[in-house]
Amino acid sequence: MYKEPKLTVVGAGPGDVELITLKAIKALASADVVLYDALVDPELLAYAEHSEHIFVGKRKGCYAYQQDQINELIISRAHAYGHVVRLKGGDPFVFGRGAEEMEYAAKAGLAVAMVPGISSSVAVPASQNIPVTKRGAAESFWVITGTTKDHQLSTDVALAAKSNATVVILMGMSKLPAIVELFKQEGKSELPIAIIQNGTRDDEKVGVAKIATIEAEVARQELANPAIIIIGEVVKHRAAILEVAQEYKQVESQKL
Amino acid sequence: MYKEPKLTVVGAGPGDVELITLKAIKALASADVVLYDALVDPELLAYAEHSEHIFVGKRKGCYAYQQDQINELIISRAHAYGHVVRLKGGDPFVFGRGAEEMEYAAKAGLAVAMVPGISSSVAVPASQNIPVTKRGAAESFWVITGTTKDHQLSTDVALAAKSNATVVILMGMSKLPAIVELFKQEGKSELPIAIIQNGTRDDEKVGVAKIATIEAEVARQELANPAIIIIGEVVKHRAAILEVAQEYKQVESQKL
Repeated sequence: MYKEPKLTVVGAGPGDVELITLKAIKALASADVVLYDALVDPELLAYAEHSEHIFVGKRKGCYAYQQDQINELIISRAHAYGHVVRLKGGDPFVFGRGAEEMEYAAKAGLAVAMVPGISSSVAVPASQNIPVTKRGAAESFWVITGTTKDHQLSTDVALAAKSNATVVILMGMSKLPAIVELFKQEGKSELPIAIIQNGTRDDEKVGVAKIATIEAEVARQELANPAIIIIGEVVKHRAAILEVAQEYKQVESQKL
Repeated sequence: MYKEPKLTVVGAGPGDVELITLKAIKALASADVVLYDALVDPELLAYAEHSEHIFVGKRKGCYAYQQDQINELIISRAHAYGHVVRLKGGDPFVFGRGAEEMEYAAKAGLAVAMVPGISSSVAVPASQNIPVTKRGAAESFWVITGTTKDHQLSTDVALAAKSNATVVILMGMSKLPAIVELFKQEGKSELPIAIIQNGTRDDEKVGVAKIATIEAEVARQELANPAIIIIGEVVKHRAAILEVAQEYKQVESQKL
């Protein structure tokens, strides 16, 4: 039976396996081959039980496959078996290279489709009660990679420090001193900042401080990548919610 | 039977009913009352078949309920029946006022939780083959509301025009001439721009042009809110994918 060679790039969401969409599950159910990353929970492969599963992620800085090898694997498996699903953590179009893989596959004659996923850039702060926008606190949010393909801090961060946007930086922990310096130069030493490591997972760690004090907090908690950095007044929302929850617990315990 | 009064703010995703998450469906299944917006597909209410459904959205500029009425409704229904689910289009923490409603409910003594949704700001461009980031094209994306609470264009747009970020503007169609002017002032008349109206829905309309020509395209297609504006080199990805697909169609038809 001839099956049309096809690539669907699918977002798995930020870690919590229940944050996958119905559309992603449908794509997995119709897959002949699934190529998945290190940030994808293998539990999700159960939705693709009749397909081949290939791990192509990176572990501890070592790539299991180089990008060009992944591209070739997509093409060869699609021609051999039909529907290849490329399952990526978060959203494939948010620093996920999903667009590159789609373009490569399309040029090789494959039909291509994309299923969005919940992006960690928004959902990990949300899981810690930090909204990326809030009336009175932020009219915009700016999501930036901390490490460009040249391993440099994106020049966008300097401009972001001048803006009123909530600034979300992914993969930026190794550049934290430079980030802090840019915000200090704009007179924003008192601006709230949060760092969330392993967001939505069991081993999640959270540090909340001000620009001036975040490096001490990082040292104290030994925070490191994979982590998301959120800078802006919206970080205060977390404390507001926790404080209220704490007050009510005290009232409840006095009642007993 | 006493049920703990609780609010869960839930994201329904960008329009396509299959882009809801399993976690959102679980929340709906355990709801006693669902308050839903105009941007939510009523088909999703089937997941909450044993609950009361209350429409609190706005239609044609008229609010069915004012925000303070919604807040009061959440509190009173939670105390009367238990679990209130507030179902919002997109993601509740991306210009969704989800944080405000959570804070109000927490202060009134309700337990509060949040389930993220796929944000239209990323998924609607994706559905038109426009990635918000792409190596070589954009190291960041900046999502801005076109209409602040004072009905003004956010001042963040002027700075965004100076940046290398992909700029995504929500609810900005009435401010399009001002947006175009800001980018022209930065010498960006040739920068690609796309406007997607009613993204992921059956009546979706798309306009693609350059900063210099987008207003003519809007007039030609009569594009209007609800729409998403995407500005940046990443817009070209759409044409690249479509062009390749077109080439293959031609090759295929020559074969016949």
